[in-house]
Amino acid sequence: MKHLIEKTIKTTDVFKGRVIDLQVEEVELPNGKTSTREVIKHPGAVAVIPVTREGKLVLVRQYRKALNKVIVEIPAGKLEQGENPLDCAKRELEEETGYNTNQLHFLLSFYTSPGFADEIIYLYLAEELGEGTSQTDEDEFLDVLEVTLDEAEKMIKQEIIHDAKTVYAVQYLKMKELSKGW
Amino acid sequence: MKHLIEKTIKTTDVFKGRVIDLQVEEVELPNGKTSTREVIKHPGAVAVIPVTREGKLVLVRQYRKALNKVIVEIPAGKLEQGENPLDCAKRELEEETGYNTNQLHFLLSFYTSPGFADEIIYLYLAEELGEGTSQTDEDEFLDVLEVTLDEAEKMIKQEIIHDAKTVYAVQYLKMKELSKGW
Repeated sequence: MKHLIEKTIKTTDVFKGRVIDLQVEEVELPNGKTSTREVIKHPGAVAVIPVTREGKLVLVRQYRKALNKVIVEIPAGKLEQGENPLDCAKRELEEETGYNTNQLHFLLSFYTSPGFADEIIYLYLAEELGEGTSQTDEDEFLDVLEVTLDEAEKMIKQEIIHDAKTVYAVQYLKMKELSKGW
Repeated sequence: MKHLIEKTIKTTDVFKGRVIDLQVEEVELPNGKTSTREVIKHPGAVAVIPVTREGKLVLVRQYRKALNKVIVEIPAGKLEQGENPLDCAKRELEEETGYNTNQLHFLLSFYTSPGFADEIIYLYLAEELGEGTSQTDEDEFLDVLEVTLDEAEKMIKQEIIHDAKTVYAVQYLKMKELSKGW
């Protein structure tokens, strides 16, 4: 892979924030020339596809400052320092939706924006949901929705659901239904 | 939606880069308290799911500085100022893979990291691929691969394919195959 790899010559810390840090890296390209890369450091996150006993998908409606828009997403949240993704998934599911469960199955992980950020999302399927206690972070405001798969697909067409992890989640459930029903 | 929306009190420009800008916004929360939001501004991007006449998926292998890792992705690239996403998709497909086509179908758009970035990806399906001229950017180095859907699914399990747009793309083709064959 030598013909692809960029060596870091110098890293400059530009910003250290509450959620993200920003570094600018001076790199040596595979052809020996130099360039710069802007890199966002993120602690990583989990996202959960919660399906109720009635077969409905649990979603959260939330304002996103970066988009200046209210969108509907699957429950998700950042990993706390040293936190195990499974524990984080269980915690975020309960905090955001009020549901808890021991039936959390890891599906896959993916990077969200490999061109400029190291954010990774660990995705879980949550079934056999029971009553828990919702308690959002003090700067977090959201509505909980329960929708059918058809309703979720409609929300994608209307761009109410409009982020990568949630369109993936809906497609995952759709595929599950196509292959054996969910 | 008033009970969800955060009003910006003050925006501070922290960084203006080649690819991304960073702003910190002081916001008034729905309950009247204040908080800060770190926001990455990105020009937006396109991604293309190119399927050859033999039914293979065309992918690119690339080093990603943010991950310090080589991964395999569908062809993608940033929108240039004022560029139409369809033109950008056609351009990026040809530059990165050497294939061109007039059969580009818009599938959907999605935000990649709504928690901290406004990056949006416009996703296209590309069929009826013909010979074009590959020409990558001067700081871009990549290998072109053509894989079957089974091979792509294996690459997801092995985390060689490991980003949101590409796992979505593979799942999209899988679903197409499940519902009618591709």
